[in-house]
Amino acid sequence: MTSEFEIIEHYFKKKIKQTALGVGDDAAIINVQKNYQLVISSDMLIENIHFLKNTNPSHLGWKSLAVNLSDIAAMGGKPKWATLSISLPKINHVWLKKFSEGFFKCANQFGIDLVGGDTSKGPLSISITIMGEIKKNQGLLRSGAKINDDIWVTGQLGLASMGLASLQGELKLAPSLKVKCIKALEMPTPKVSLGYHLSRHTNSCIDISDGLIQDLNHILKASKVGAALLLNDIPCEKFIHASKQYQFVLNGGDDYELLFTAPKKNRPYIEKIAKKTNTAISVIGVITQNKTLKIMDQKGRSISFNKKGFDHFA
Amino acid sequence: MTSEFEIIEHYFKKKIKQTALGVGDDAAIINVQKNYQLVISSDMLIENIHFLKNTNPSHLGWKSLAVNLSDIAAMGGKPKWATLSISLPKINHVWLKKFSEGFFKCANQFGIDLVGGDTSKGPLSISITIMGEIKKNQGLLRSGAKINDDIWVTGQLGLASMGLASLQGELKLAPSLKVKCIKALEMPTPKVSLGYHLSRHTNSCIDISDGLIQDLNHILKASKVGAALLLNDIPCEKFIHASKQYQFVLNGGDDYELLFTAPKKNRPYIEKIAKKTNTAISVIGVITQNKTLKIMDQKGRSISFNKKGFDHFA
Repeated sequence: MTSEFEIIEHYFKKKIKQTALGVGDDAAIINVQKNYQLVISSDMLIENIHFLKNTNPSHLGWKSLAVNLSDIAAMGGKPKWATLSISLPKINHVWLKKFSEGFFKCANQFGIDLVGGDTSKGPLSISITIMGEIKKNQGLLRSGAKINDDIWVTGQLGLASMGLASLQGELKLAPSLKVKCIKALEMPTPKVSLGYHLSRHTNSCIDISDGLIQDLNHILKASKVGAALLLNDIPCEKFIHASKQYQFVLNGGDDYELLFTAPKKNRPYIEKIAKKTNTAISVIGVITQNKTLKIMDQKGRSISFNKKGFDHFA
Repeated sequence: MTSEFEIIEHYFKKKIKQTALGVGDDAAIINVQKNYQLVISSDMLIENIHFLKNTNPSHLGWKSLAVNLSDIAAMGGKPKWATLSISLPKINHVWLKKFSEGFFKCANQFGIDLVGGDTSKGPLSISITIMGEIKKNQGLLRSGAKINDDIWVTGQLGLASMGLASLQGELKLAPSLKVKCIKALEMPTPKVSLGYHLSRHTNSCIDISDGLIQDLNHILKASKVGAALLLNDIPCEKFIHASKQYQFVLNGGDDYELLFTAPKKNRPYIEKIAKKTNTAISVIGVITQNKTLKIMDQKGRSISFNKKGFDHFA
């Protein structure tokens, strides 16, 4: 098994469940249901930029798809189809077996058909395009935040960047916390079900991939509003408060939690959906008229913070 | 201008014409017309594998999109939307300007909206996903070839691989032919309009990207048939016949011509469509019952040939 066709056939051609024509022709063919739009996003993962050399290939397979699913979740869509283009320095069957297992573990959990892609020799990189359905005109955009909206986040922030810092020897963590942080870094859970159910009940949404501040700023800019956050309300490990290393929570990349804004009156519904989808959620602040972002400590004092998030060219 | 957001904003955010929501949110949103299916393909181009170092970035921008359009043409679809993920060793504005100009020259010529993608630091590589519409159940598959079908190809075969061999110093060509071959290599014209109009009038279709023999074999295998080709009927430069270097025509990659099969009775319609779309076409053989591929010289003798095409891992 040495050609690209054999690799595709062996590792990446699986049974399709919701696709008219899958892997094996010049292109795939899918049906989009009546009254639905198609929602599309592409993400690329490159060795030594997005993941460390020698990352567990099964975790990498999971994460490659998961970060794409997170984009569809942030739109309120239902992800259904993916293409996968992968370049490898050489054909390594152990690596390919583990990578494809991780990829399909994620694909199966979230109901995704792999419908196409490409393979080639080259520096290790993974490019995925994810497609899903969304009810007409019900997409969760960045541009819809309204003054006095609650600002919500899912899960805990900062875990992934703590995991990365720990792997790079820049942060010392207790063993159990280290395991938790590395799992958050390598196998994030996209909030697909929550995102899908939030549609129509929130005004704006984004996934936190480049850090809370940077991603919240995308919403503020697109919506032409400001925000006030309460530092102590941002869900994170006790370690953060104890060590005051808030940069992990505010600027750390790779969280893949959802950040969304919604009218206060929708709290009961949002809490119900969060419970139903088994997703932790927290209100961390409020959308304001003043087009700036303020973060307050528990005494109501405005704290200074680094505005930059993760930049792949930095 | 140094961040990925600024690069996207400056070079890759253009006016969209047929897209509900384009570049700038977590994902793009498109509408698929009633009674149409969506057809999707992904292709990746990597420096030193798919293109030489120092390739003209404008030509590379054109080609990156063109090879993807060719896949949709080979399905009989109408390409409409693309995502572009690009990794670059560093931000080079001269390169980015030229690359994006070439990309959008092709996009504008074929009516494509760029709707999303990703940018990152990394070894130079380009991953594109192309999406288009196709009338329900009218896709041109590889699996439909029927015994006694004419085998057609568009254009001339072998030019691109001759261009590559010439650039690599492995083939000496007359100056005017060299220019023609390098243009074929660097700026292929996808046969989009022909492919779209062929739908319903052909039984099978593929684009020739890995060499005539390898790609025809994909049709033969999928359709469970054989083929007999007449070597002298394969459209190519006189140089090929004079030098007997048929490997360029039979095994050379990167042609991006269409190879399709159709009942003899459809010849008049196919010729009319070819004329209308200004596409050169030739019948090069016939589909046979015997599941093998034979190539005959002008005296009717079966010639021996290399069965291998281009393989990105070879």
